[in-house]
Amino acid sequence: MKVNKDELVSQMQVICGNNFEYYDTESLSHYGHDETEKLLFPPDIVVKPSTAAEISLIIKYCNQHLITVTPRGAGTGLSGGAIPQKGGVVISLERLNKIIYIDERNLQVTTEPGVITEELQNAVREKGLFYPPDPASRGSCFIGGNIAENSGGPRAVKYGVVKDYVLNLEVVLPTGEIIWTGANILKNSTGYNLTQLIVGSEGTLCIVTKIVLRLIPHPKYDLLMLAPFASLEKASEAVSAIFRAGFTPSALELVEIDALKIVSKMVDSYIVPVTDDIVAHLIIETDGNNFEVLMSEMEAIAELLNQFETGEILFADDAQQKDELWKLRRRVAEATKQAGYTIEEDTVVPRAELPSLIKGIKALGKQHNFEAVCYGHAGDGNLHVRIKKEGIPNSYDNEEMKKILNELFHLVKSLGGTISGEHGIGLIQKDFMPVVMDEININLMRSIKKVFDPNNILNPGKIFDL
Amino acid sequence: MKVNKDELVSQMQVICGNNFEYYDTESLSHYGHDETEKLLFPPDIVVKPSTAAEISLIIKYCNQHLITVTPRGAGTGLSGGAIPQKGGVVISLERLNKIIYIDERNLQVTTEPGVITEELQNAVREKGLFYPPDPASRGSCFIGGNIAENSGGPRAVKYGVVKDYVLNLEVVLPTGEIIWTGANILKNSTGYNLTQLIVGSEGTLCIVTKIVLRLIPHPKYDLLMLAPFASLEKASEAVSAIFRAGFTPSALELVEIDALKIVSKMVDSYIVPVTDDIVAHLIIETDGNNFEVLMSEMEAIAELLNQFETGEILFADDAQQKDELWKLRRRVAEATKQAGYTIEEDTVVPRAELPSLIKGIKALGKQHNFEAVCYGHAGDGNLHVRIKKEGIPNSYDNEEMKKILNELFHLVKSLGGTISGEHGIGLIQKDFMPVVMDEININLMRSIKKVFDPNNILNPGKIFDL
Repeated sequence: MKVNKDELVSQMQVICGNNFEYYDTESLSHYGHDETEKLLFPPDIVVKPSTAAEISLIIKYCNQHLITVTPRGAGTGLSGGAIPQKGGVVISLERLNKIIYIDERNLQVTTEPGVITEELQNAVREKGLFYPPDPASRGSCFIGGNIAENSGGPRAVKYGVVKDYVLNLEVVLPTGEIIWTGANILKNSTGYNLTQLIVGSEGTLCIVTKIVLRLIPHPKYDLLMLAPFASLEKASEAVSAIFRAGFTPSALELVEIDALKIVSKMVDSYIVPVTDDIVAHLIIETDGNNFEVLMSEMEAIAELLNQFETGEILFADDAQQKDELWKLRRRVAEATKQAGYTIEEDTVVPRAELPSLIKGIKALGKQHNFEAVCYGHAGDGNLHVRIKKEGIPNSYDNEEMKKILNELFHLVKSLGGTISGEHGIGLIQKDFMPVVMDEININLMRSIKKVFDPNNILNPGKIFDL
Repeated sequence: MKVNKDELVSQMQVICGNNFEYYDTESLSHYGHDETEKLLFPPDIVVKPSTAAEISLIIKYCNQHLITVTPRGAGTGLSGGAIPQKGGVVISLERLNKIIYIDERNLQVTTEPGVITEELQNAVREKGLFYPPDPASRGSCFIGGNIAENSGGPRAVKYGVVKDYVLNLEVVLPTGEIIWTGANILKNSTGYNLTQLIVGSEGTLCIVTKIVLRLIPHPKYDLLMLAPFASLEKASEAVSAIFRAGFTPSALELVEIDALKIVSKMVDSYIVPVTDDIVAHLIIETDGNNFEVLMSEMEAIAELLNQFETGEILFADDAQQKDELWKLRRRVAEATKQAGYTIEEDTVVPRAELPSLIKGIKALGKQHNFEAVCYGHAGDGNLHVRIKKEGIPNSYDNEEMKKILNELFHLVKSLGGTISGEHGIGLIQKDFMPVVMDEININLMRSIKKVFDPNNILNPGKIFDL
């Protein structure tokens, strides 16, 4: 940072006027962490602009004076993307919080990035429309953060992830220009796909200020069931069997029994019966417009599961039961973190390799003396692994844990997978990029970063070091 | 080109051995055009390597000696992407023609780029699997060319375009390195999305040598109907009404009557009754796993169409009728081109703006004295416009036609659309990029091009000039 803090403060005040807030130490701490492990790096100042034009002025100034800028949504990220590790200015997007326009004629929505994902989903649902991507944090995360991380969630297995819904983005470049990356249309072969390059770029290429998403008609019905298994391998074998049999559930989640016990206790809900012989559950949802078809699909899936030695299947009877089951699933990460499983990984492998991955994780745990619980989007091969190891709350600055993760990611790589399915690389995974990726690829990414951000002021040190 | 042709020939012979072929003038002409208008630019030589390693050696040599390289699939492109406008070496991918592996466990296929799209579709269908993108040329185009152009086709309206199925690519960079761009998994938030950057980059960033596509279970049934309209506006209004009512057809095509007459004559099929009052037809397909549900969906759509003054709807009775209808649709481009409509545009607008686009095109035709027939993927807002104007076979080198297209594209832009939905920019559309895109965007693309191809040897002068 080449200017002193007083000078920076007065410049930001000029640009943002009433939208500038100068924080005491406590407030700065709030903007110094997200949901990643137990990391804290407070920024020098936080600004809360409310327009792209203001962001442009802020970033131009910072670019001129080589001041680090970190864009921030709701701070629910799990890889440290919004943590201002190098200090400087945090640009919080919380005031860009308007849904601008729901285009019912074209089944699209234009929104600002600071809208909570679930509120956006509810708003379009009122018009009979559906925006499927639903990260577990959807009740608190911002849609802008979802764009940055290319988030997924349970419904990705049928409906795809965020990238499959983004048509067009208004962004502010690190040099201050404001551009639209595409057009509000369903097909586009007009030059390189800048939109797709920016989705998942973790706030390192530009700051997203408007988002155009395609929507689909909301399915009329959904059904939910819960299948217990006495063997993790059988449960994960059942997952790929379901797809091979031609079914495409709208969610296919796996939760290990230890995780379920922890979350049941936290939310004080015992809807799921737990017996000693059960090691994991599959949560299976189907959706569509014809109730009878869905019912017979569910029955056929249940029959298929019997081949994999499932226990007694629980069908959710009503909306309340469904909500309760989903609440349990969505709060697993929070509950296990509170219970000391502070390190979360976001492994992803081809679906049929899940049994090998789970087996490998358990073996690693025994070998290195850590506890691991697994849960996540089994239908996508995207398995979250939460790790608890006495005295090691973070992987970020711990050499022992890094060695363990290095082994884990070599396993993932050997199964044809990679290290992040939906959380991003951010701060805590960047050291492992070379495990799954050629240096040539990383260098291409570095060069693309320089095209957008020649002075490396925007969220530097995330994904890779320059 | 800094070496003489003899030297180049002998070097290529060393690299490719038996896979090198040296062509006479006539053969070179074959590799000097694609299906774009009436353009011809023969290359200096053509090589037909059969491995990525050979391509790497070829391109390294060319990069060292600043020799232009143009990759080529089946030559069915419609924007001139495979035309070696600046001479040099054409690398034909026709010998990389193997389907490497259909992974039934994970619903994926790994293929070389020189496989004909329809053959790939048939091969996976034998396993009960579905690769939906189906450009009209699917019986002759290569899957590699589809990746280059981010192709679509009728089924895109329900199933998305090529970019929605590409998981991972093996590519040769212009500097000779061979890399994989991603991993064979369904979700990936591990660094910038190089895979998506390459899809649709029209062979300007690298040469694709292996492709991993995700597949889905093949739907069991499909139904097809044909609805005649006495008004183009009513027909296109019906299109967006279908989606607003919550239906998602697996195809929703529009064909103007003049185009239908021309193609019916060419293929000698008169399955579609033509009366004087009809100006256009909608072809509507639904697919799914439950026949009764599909039937009632079709009936509901038919009832909806009545509100838009449709004539008597024809339901295709059997596979043969369906095939015949689809053959008519797929051969419209070829037939109208033969009939003198040599200039084809690939406009795309938000679906609900179709009526305005069609009205505008007709007005332009009157004003500038040209005939235009419209057809295409109305459900996506992607309308192909074929233009016939006495004495002007090409837009590429004709100032009068360029002025007309400039007006057309300003109209498209004003409706929120862009100039290519699935054909790409290539040679013939690049002059119009500034109509729909900010100079800043084009400069970002230029800089990305330089990252991949510092010497600008790979397919130079396509999409934009450096």
